[in-house]
Amino acid sequence: MTLPKPLDELVRSFARLPGVGAKSAQRFAFSVLAMDESEVFALSDALKCAKTQLHPCPVCGAYTSNDGECDICLDTSRSDNVICVVENARDVFYMSDNRSGFDGRFHVLGGVLSPVDGITPDDLNIASLADRVKKGGVDEVILATEPDVEGEATANYIARLLRPLGVRVTRIAYGMPIGSNLEYVDAMTLSLALEGRREIKDS
Amino acid sequence: MTLPKPLDELVRSFARLPGVGAKSAQRFAFSVLAMDESEVFALSDALKCAKTQLHPCPVCGAYTSNDGECDICLDTSRSDNVICVVENARDVFYMSDNRSGFDGRFHVLGGVLSPVDGITPDDLNIASLADRVKKGGVDEVILATEPDVEGEATANYIARLLRPLGVRVTRIAYGMPIGSNLEYVDAMTLSLALEGRREIKDS
Repeated sequence: MTLPKPLDELVRSFARLPGVGAKSAQRFAFSVLAMDESEVFALSDALKCAKTQLHPCPVCGAYTSNDGECDICLDTSRSDNVICVVENARDVFYMSDNRSGFDGRFHVLGGVLSPVDGITPDDLNIASLADRVKKGGVDEVILATEPDVEGEATANYIARLLRPLGVRVTRIAYGMPIGSNLEYVDAMTLSLALEGRREIKDS
Repeated sequence: MTLPKPLDELVRSFARLPGVGAKSAQRFAFSVLAMDESEVFALSDALKCAKTQLHPCPVCGAYTSNDGECDICLDTSRSDNVICVVENARDVFYMSDNRSGFDGRFHVLGGVLSPVDGITPDDLNIASLADRVKKGGVDEVILATEPDVEGEATANYIARLLRPLGVRVTRIAYGMPIGSNLEYVDAMTLSLALEGRREIKDS
């Protein structure tokens, strides 16, 4: 298939997005040609704006366009005594959703420990997390790294590091996701859901 | 979920692409932040270039960035005596793929007849197709509109219009797509595959 050069370049650029194969990239490119020019220019400008204006928050590491701390760090309605530790900046936005019920602060590690890939504690924002705890006022650190081997190892490493500082270190629960079936959940999750069972109390 | 404004605008823009929901748009937006600036700027520029530089070919209606006719119309290795009629400009690129084995010219209708949506023959590039045939040198017009109600009706309309001009009018074949199973093909396709059966000749 031979496309005119501007179209070919657009298809190649779209194909660099995650999970976008050749067919999807073509579909996106042709839909762009059918869109209003204002919409296409808005996407084009939004790409440049996002890339140039967003940078990590100096405190928690989430994305912000503020000069100093991000909106979540500046939000006085959130409590300072709980820090939720996540792998990536995007996890902050999922966790800060009102429906999660979490109203504390965040800390972005910027990855997970991975000896295979040569990623050591020095490559992650772990020292800055310890500094935030040492400053005082933090009662609990919730480790919300992903439930996989690296996420688990990273959580254990941080727990061992922070516990001597006199802070409570917790791990988010494993179990059945809401809306799933026993039929479709893997055996490891079922095992952890059983292990983490809780007493049903009179309400 | 509250995103910084530049990120929120990027997510909204991505969500305007076909088949991209809120989650995919977020995934694209966060991946853009992790990409090299040069790659992001390339996508941003490709969007504007494609939208401003591409326009319909004055002969066939496919997308081109040429001042006059498109590369396919200018290609002297293609034969002038067969025209393949398609619904949309993007169909030209699929049909012009070398593997399709088609080496003739194209004509883009710009849609299909649809009384429900008020789309009449005057809204499509049908008169210009008749003009191309009237000019002479065309032996066959292959109708490659989609195999659905509107595509079929449009093909029949064009066939009735062109046949009196002394040109052979054909329709692309219905049948089993390569690689599919009898199990997964719908009954209508099976019926048409049987109806369109051909003698196996000694080769």
